[in-house]
Amino acid sequence: KMPLETLVCPYATRLVILCKDEQGKVGLKVKSINKGVFVCLVAKNSPAAMGGLRFGDQVLQINGDNVAGFNENKVHDIFKKAPVNNIVLAVRDRPFERTLTLHKDSTGHLGFQFKDGKITAIAVNSSAARNGLLIDHNLLEVNGQNVVGVKDKETTKLIDEGGQIVTITVIPNFLYQHMVKNMANSLVKKMMDHSMPDI
Amino acid sequence: KMPLETLVCPYATRLVILCKDEQGKVGLKVKSINKGVFVCLVAKNSPAAMGGLRFGDQVLQINGDNVAGFNENKVHDIFKKAPVNNIVLAVRDRPFERTLTLHKDSTGHLGFQFKDGKITAIAVNSSAARNGLLIDHNLLEVNGQNVVGVKDKETTKLIDEGGQIVTITVIPNFLYQHMVKNMANSLVKKMMDHSMPDI
Repeated sequence: KMPLETLVCPYATRLVILCKDEQGKVGLKVKSINKGVFVCLVAKNSPAAMGGLRFGDQVLQINGDNVAGFNENKVHDIFKKAPVNNIVLAVRDRPFERTLTLHKDSTGHLGFQFKDGKITAIAVNSSAARNGLLIDHNLLEVNGQNVVGVKDKETTKLIDEGGQIVTITVIPNFLYQHMVKNMANSLVKKMMDHSMPDI
Repeated sequence: KMPLETLVCPYATRLVILCKDEQGKVGLKVKSINKGVFVCLVAKNSPAAMGGLRFGDQVLQINGDNVAGFNENKVHDIFKKAPVNNIVLAVRDRPFERTLTLHKDSTGHLGFQFKDGKITAIAVNSSAARNGLLIDHNLLEVNGQNVVGVKDKETTKLIDEGGQIVTITVIPNFLYQHMVKNMANSLVKKMMDHSMPDI
């Protein structure tokens, strides 16, 4: 029985209720960083994806238990042992991410370069420069679509076709590296939910 | 003459208008991180302090010029050469900081330990754990008061006397280290604006 009275929902956190799919999975992988538990993989079409979980979300509680200090194996084990329904997560919205709104110039550019998803240069007097976009940050989303593990060419296409105003979500590279460590790029690419968000 | 038409004020940024004091100073030191310019020192009672600038703020423009990619010397030089009045900064509110609201338990504790301002441990089932406070982060503010360079004992006193609900503002340690690098601790302690914010 879930101790509902211990569930908390402070500012900028939310509750997500998950069930398991036919394979008994919630479709979520986490990574422990600084004693916090962070979502590093949301599988396509999984309960976690349906629940709106995203790369970088911080999991605070599972079924009323604080998970601060738990390592990833312990958390994955909790999911494994959890019942099929009513797995309640308290989640803090991606604490390390920032979303910037950039405007294309007359040549269609936002003003930054990236390689393997990591921002490497900011053009002088560009929209990226005006908005304070930083290098050594990784692209997580373009117009709300996850681009973790997506080829640069495809990300560029998304940006090019993304209209005059493009929102990008970024995370400092050192945290990104932590989160994708030990995840084979092909796995990320194959499993990650890259679908467009419902608006 | 300031090119006002080039000043931008996108989401979560603000304009700050500074003048110089009798010593010809704005009371601000910056640090370049990832091609961005960040406030790392706001001198007590300085024009910068009056303008509401805070440790961690990102300076985007000075008098209409983007400062992306500028190093700290170049920025300090701009301030030095600027006229006495009407120095206009476009500033993004501390992009790397987070503020958490913690509640004291029955023994008066929030549930974390810190050493030299850096969070080192989170107590099981504490308010800090429930709220997802992370280790390897540095305390920047307690109830809105800057504690950069403040002795742990004094910070603890602030927390103890800070009422039942305490807000703390933190920044990842690796960024903190960048920002205070080359600043002698005594300088920080002596010059930094540690006054309470006006509410």
